[in-house]
Amino acid sequence: MTESVLQGLGVSAGIRTGKAFVYAPVRLTDVEKKKTQDTPAEIERLRAAKSACEAELQVLIEKAQRTLGEEKAVILKGQISFLLDPTFYPPMEKLIENEQWTAESAIHQVVTQVAALFESMKNEYMRERAADVRDVGNRMFAQLCERKGTQLSDITEPVILIADDLTPSDTVQLDKNLVLGFVTRIGGKTSHTAILANSLGIAAILGLGDGIDPIQHGDELLIDGSTGRCILNPSEPTKESYHALMLRDEVEKAELQAYVERDAVTKDGFRIELAANIGTVEESASLLSQGAEAVGLYRTEFLFMGQSQMPDEETQYKAYREVAEAMKGRPVVIRTLDIGGDKELPYLDLPKEMNPFLGYRAIRLCLDRKELLHTQLRAILRAGVHGHVKIMFPMISGMEEWRQAKEIYEQVREQLSKEGIPYADSVELGIMIEIPSAALLASRFAKEVDFFSIGTNDLVQYTVAVDRMNEKVSYLYDYFHPAVIRLIKTVIDASVDAGKWTGMCGSMAGDPLAAPLLLGLGLHEWSMSASSLSKVKKVITDLNRSDCAALVEKILDMDTAAEVREALLAFQP
Amino acid sequence: MTESVLQGLGVSAGIRTGKAFVYAPVRLTDVEKKKTQDTPAEIERLRAAKSACEAELQVLIEKAQRTLGEEKAVILKGQISFLLDPTFYPPMEKLIENEQWTAESAIHQVVTQVAALFESMKNEYMRERAADVRDVGNRMFAQLCERKGTQLSDITEPVILIADDLTPSDTVQLDKNLVLGFVTRIGGKTSHTAILANSLGIAAILGLGDGIDPIQHGDELLIDGSTGRCILNPSEPTKESYHALMLRDEVEKAELQAYVERDAVTKDGFRIELAANIGTVEESASLLSQGAEAVGLYRTEFLFMGQSQMPDEETQYKAYREVAEAMKGRPVVIRTLDIGGDKELPYLDLPKEMNPFLGYRAIRLCLDRKELLHTQLRAILRAGVHGHVKIMFPMISGMEEWRQAKEIYEQVREQLSKEGIPYADSVELGIMIEIPSAALLASRFAKEVDFFSIGTNDLVQYTVAVDRMNEKVSYLYDYFHPAVIRLIKTVIDASVDAGKWTGMCGSMAGDPLAAPLLLGLGLHEWSMSASSLSKVKKVITDLNRSDCAALVEKILDMDTAAEVREALLAFQP
Repeated sequence: MTESVLQGLGVSAGIRTGKAFVYAPVRLTDVEKKKTQDTPAEIERLRAAKSACEAELQVLIEKAQRTLGEEKAVILKGQISFLLDPTFYPPMEKLIENEQWTAESAIHQVVTQVAALFESMKNEYMRERAADVRDVGNRMFAQLCERKGTQLSDITEPVILIADDLTPSDTVQLDKNLVLGFVTRIGGKTSHTAILANSLGIAAILGLGDGIDPIQHGDELLIDGSTGRCILNPSEPTKESYHALMLRDEVEKAELQAYVERDAVTKDGFRIELAANIGTVEESASLLSQGAEAVGLYRTEFLFMGQSQMPDEETQYKAYREVAEAMKGRPVVIRTLDIGGDKELPYLDLPKEMNPFLGYRAIRLCLDRKELLHTQLRAILRAGVHGHVKIMFPMISGMEEWRQAKEIYEQVREQLSKEGIPYADSVELGIMIEIPSAALLASRFAKEVDFFSIGTNDLVQYTVAVDRMNEKVSYLYDYFHPAVIRLIKTVIDASVDAGKWTGMCGSMAGDPLAAPLLLGLGLHEWSMSASSLSKVKKVITDLNRSDCAALVEKILDMDTAAEVREALLAFQP
Repeated sequence: MTESVLQGLGVSAGIRTGKAFVYAPVRLTDVEKKKTQDTPAEIERLRAAKSACEAELQVLIEKAQRTLGEEKAVILKGQISFLLDPTFYPPMEKLIENEQWTAESAIHQVVTQVAALFESMKNEYMRERAADVRDVGNRMFAQLCERKGTQLSDITEPVILIADDLTPSDTVQLDKNLVLGFVTRIGGKTSHTAILANSLGIAAILGLGDGIDPIQHGDELLIDGSTGRCILNPSEPTKESYHALMLRDEVEKAELQAYVERDAVTKDGFRIELAANIGTVEESASLLSQGAEAVGLYRTEFLFMGQSQMPDEETQYKAYREVAEAMKGRPVVIRTLDIGGDKELPYLDLPKEMNPFLGYRAIRLCLDRKELLHTQLRAILRAGVHGHVKIMFPMISGMEEWRQAKEIYEQVREQLSKEGIPYADSVELGIMIEIPSAALLASRFAKEVDFFSIGTNDLVQYTVAVDRMNEKVSYLYDYFHPAVIRLIKTVIDASVDAGKWTGMCGSMAGDPLAAPLLLGLGLHEWSMSASSLSKVKKVITDLNRSDCAALVEKILDMDTAAEVREALLAFQP
């Protein structure tokens, strides 16, 4: 058991130690309908699978009761009750007996039917049971396979999760009390999984590649989410030195605490609005106490993910209202549904695309399926009565899209008026600047929109034509690319000329190194993950805006991102 | 047999009638190694497949001899000789007998081994036999499947090809005497398949979707590659009216013939360099007689496609030299290897990517695997002795990439000098402008490069963040987008300021509607498919550059592509 060090991409800071839980799900999908010739043998296989599945659940339940309490155990108990339900198991046996199907085909058929039945129900609680039905189906199916899988619901004690990949919807379901951190084979620095891990405060390392192979279920691990180092079987001296690091982190955190209450004002008196990016309602609760003055980006898509169907107007209204209320009158910029790309919604049945990042997503999808936008805008306007909301449309590439979205907004207002439903009347409308064409036309957009919010992650991706998740080319992904800086300048200047304002909600805004540049360019609102707020505030209060403007002049005359970075590193406020 | 009209995307003009050949290949890939329990039955299956395959080839050979002559028949005869070779079929039987494998597994194993053997040979002719071995393997495999497939090599008489999709390497292999036109289920207006069909002069309609389903093998079809109309079982009146259209096309062609010899000079005396895009050596032969003054884009990647391994320096040298000589001292802009994206090279073993258009391609790949660029630059510089070549690097996104490519160019020159090999010494070096970041930094690039060539297809794609092949969003793909026009202006202005020149090799250059805009912007060199040259020349000779410059002023003040298009349609020279 010698120590070995594996290197990945550190995407969410935090030093954690724990046992490895290797997540390798067996999934009941794409089972072909096959016939058997030996029905008694097949029924025997099915019975055995059922018993093994029951036994497995019993063990998990006992464990959950011991470590997590009754609430979590109840979910697993629900799964056992499905197994014993007369509408679940007996029909499977019948399919084998009467139709000579294989056990796998029979499970697939019944699970699909029962899950569909639950999904069609009105009651939200009942609808959510469809996921449990599928989970039980997967468990039975796993028993029939040679390879035994593991499910996320098997986690009953604090672990470090090891997976080939985690989808954003997997991630959003993780319980931060159980998952101390995770390590994956694939994924890039700014994938949505990384963003989520950050905002949930789960330490994460992505893109370990084949380096992940030696990690076995139950192995002891030490991970450092800021350096991307994953240490298998750490020695005592290693653990001690990391313990010291953790203590230093704690000290730094305490120092930064002093900045929570301070305003983000430069030495020469320029005031910045410091805002936070959030993905879930829960995150909004502690934002004010973390020093956020606003929510600069509320990613509503996570409300839509990990669901079996579209959240209705009421569900959305409640979520938006809760965030608006938590912010006590401070602005909350709500971004309309940004789905597609690497964020899928099974119930929307989106087409498989060859280049999803250049495809059918965000506003494109919402202008094609207008009912989505309609419902969401209703919910936002209604929630606006309880706080200060602003609306922002993602992935705008041209004026027509913005004007169409605006038109739907006007229709929704008119409709709410007619229905006599209270709604927020003077809501600011803005667009995300994340496509080069929108940045290039900023001076024209500035005549019609109330604000811009620059999404640097996508903007860099399209400007430089690089998929930030692709390890072969991710070296090209750099927000200090001189072309990106020019676009940012174009946008900010256009907003200033028109008397509007520009925010930024990409990861550049939360990078202390970028602060002198963004300050010099005159960025008005900076939105980042809550954990970066104090760090950036500390940098801003140490800067003079006039020095930064001079620095920007020099930077605009540079050829490469490397030169820009060097200049920023050398810049002494 | 009533007539029915199916609508697709017309991507390569031409009215053609003929019988449908439905291309639905069965491919011997991903066969799992499986065991059988009944080896005698399995050997019987294999034998039957072999006999059926032999009989099928005999029929094709006789047909080929009748319709195409002995040369084509020889290829098919070669396939029969493989079937009868002692190193091919007998080892398959042995694998079943000794290892209890299934017939499919045995075919897969032997075909893979034998093909690999051929590919490792030094002699080019022998290396190319690997494709034949695979073809025979696919034929045997198809016999074992329930679905019988068809291969492109089955075409022995003139047909209209019907396919789900054609890869660029499928297309490059098409014999234009046999394939009058083709119709596919998927694919967009500016895919590389469309570009190839255009330059081969094969009429083509892409993206028919499910509309393609009613077409059966042998059905009579009439296709119109300019309107995208595909008529199944055309009636006599329909055929007659299309015949009249064909005659009108002939007349128009004859009229345009008058422009072949004329220079592309506007009424007020501004001279344009009109050049052609080519993909193969063969296309260069007739360019001068079609009125091209230069090759503005030689896509070298097609020399690399449809091969079992990298073409060596000598093969490349011969091809480049032939094109340079055919142009008799006129410029030939050779673009270095632009592979990746939708153009694959099996022997490079490229990674599967989630967003290939934002991935590992073109210069990115060539700077990672420098030997590719090294060999190609040697071949180009040597060929330059026999004509007037220029070199252009694709997919440049930043200054570092250009500087690295330039450095390799310098190394190659030095090496050739040392070796005493003759090479062209003063070669102009340029970059493609197809990534927004390169366009935005044009004023900086202009200090170092000799010329720009704007690739509008990719530039639009990245600027607007739209995959032009994706039917759900292709409506956003438009080179008249105001942001794209601004970028084109930035690039041309930067080159003028630095005393350099700008060309354009995207499909915008060949669009007569775009001509007043490009002329007004001051574009120097226009490169298009040879078939568009006379049409564009006719438009240019009717224009005043000063009128066009005034038009551009108005266009730069527009918000949408629709307004720009309207202004161009309304513009009267």
